[in-house]
Amino acid sequence: MDFSSKLLEQAVAEMSQLPGIGKRTALRLVLHLLKQPEPQTEQLAAALVNLRTKIKLCSNCHNISDSEVCEICANPKRIRDTVCVVEDIRDVMAIENTGQYRGLYHVLGGKISPMDGVGPSQLTIKSLIDKVKVGEVEEIIFALSSTLEGDTTNFYIFKQLEGIPIKTSTIARGISVGDELEYTDEVTLGRSIVNRIPFENSLKN
Amino acid sequence: MDFSSKLLEQAVAEMSQLPGIGKRTALRLVLHLLKQPEPQTEQLAAALVNLRTKIKLCSNCHNISDSEVCEICANPKRIRDTVCVVEDIRDVMAIENTGQYRGLYHVLGGKISPMDGVGPSQLTIKSLIDKVKVGEVEEIIFALSSTLEGDTTNFYIFKQLEGIPIKTSTIARGISVGDELEYTDEVTLGRSIVNRIPFENSLKN
Repeated sequence: MDFSSKLLEQAVAEMSQLPGIGKRTALRLVLHLLKQPEPQTEQLAAALVNLRTKIKLCSNCHNISDSEVCEICANPKRIRDTVCVVEDIRDVMAIENTGQYRGLYHVLGGKISPMDGVGPSQLTIKSLIDKVKVGEVEEIIFALSSTLEGDTTNFYIFKQLEGIPIKTSTIARGISVGDELEYTDEVTLGRSIVNRIPFENSLKN
Repeated sequence: MDFSSKLLEQAVAEMSQLPGIGKRTALRLVLHLLKQPEPQTEQLAAALVNLRTKIKLCSNCHNISDSEVCEICANPKRIRDTVCVVEDIRDVMAIENTGQYRGLYHVLGGKISPMDGVGPSQLTIKSLIDKVKVGEVEEIIFALSSTLEGDTTNFYIFKQLEGIPIKTSTIARGISVGDELEYTDEVTLGRSIVNRIPFENSLKN
């Protein structure tokens, strides 16, 4: 693209480095900002820089936080010996939204994925194992995405925990609530039969 | 959404004010920035603020520009008495890319659209009429989108020019180069028959 303005070109170039934002979309967003009052752009810029420079990771669970220890880890009402292993803050938010979980979290910061160059050392797995070894944890709940990378990561951590007497579980996989049986994929349906639960359990909640 | 961090919440709130960016996409973009080195966020923020505070509109054609007069208007090789009326800089870029136009532009800054609260006074129509009255312009080419708003705007300007001896034209509407006739919509096909051109003209370019 041939811009009539270097300033515009730079803004579009920076904007289009964001994932899923191409040059055209970047131009549209930037032109939108130009039509809005100046403070909006300044607030956006300040919010991004503030976030990037001031954000902390909770020293306990590695979740994104404004303080040394995040609100969840600092909450005395939380069950401290149950730890739910998740990929990132979005999963924490999703689980929190259910209102069904009262334990703590451990945010890995990603999944083991050799294709993307992510190995165990880039994740916070060691910190999790250390926590377990100290004896702080009674149950670990694996709540990673049901993908090859998620399963690999679960299994890697499970192997690391070998020999340590700890309860491990994984969130249930099965057909979604409200799903029609005939449209469910075979693997999911197959597993949901193998891992069937006592009927009275399904009456809870 | 329930954020564990006020900084994150603010960044997402600002980001999701951009058109077409919802809360979820904003969160994805912001988390991406957190994974990148700090300078990337700072450069993005600086580029946006720079653009918003330093950008100028060309005093002649109202196009976005780094200087008082844009490169196109300042170019002595341009044909100065032909003015192409467009909506915004994206249209200027699109027409420049064709390499078929050597005249000047006049950027309206939008289209007349009562639904969006845009009237003639918010556009640079008066400045265009003034330019014409001074006698600087010999031909005006309307190059707005072929929509209701575009046609309304064209017609409004056309009416304003009544009584002034000036040549007006509009970019040709017809079937796109490479299009199959059977898939072309009726209105376009109908107009392309009514506005048929001498065959020898189609041999140009």
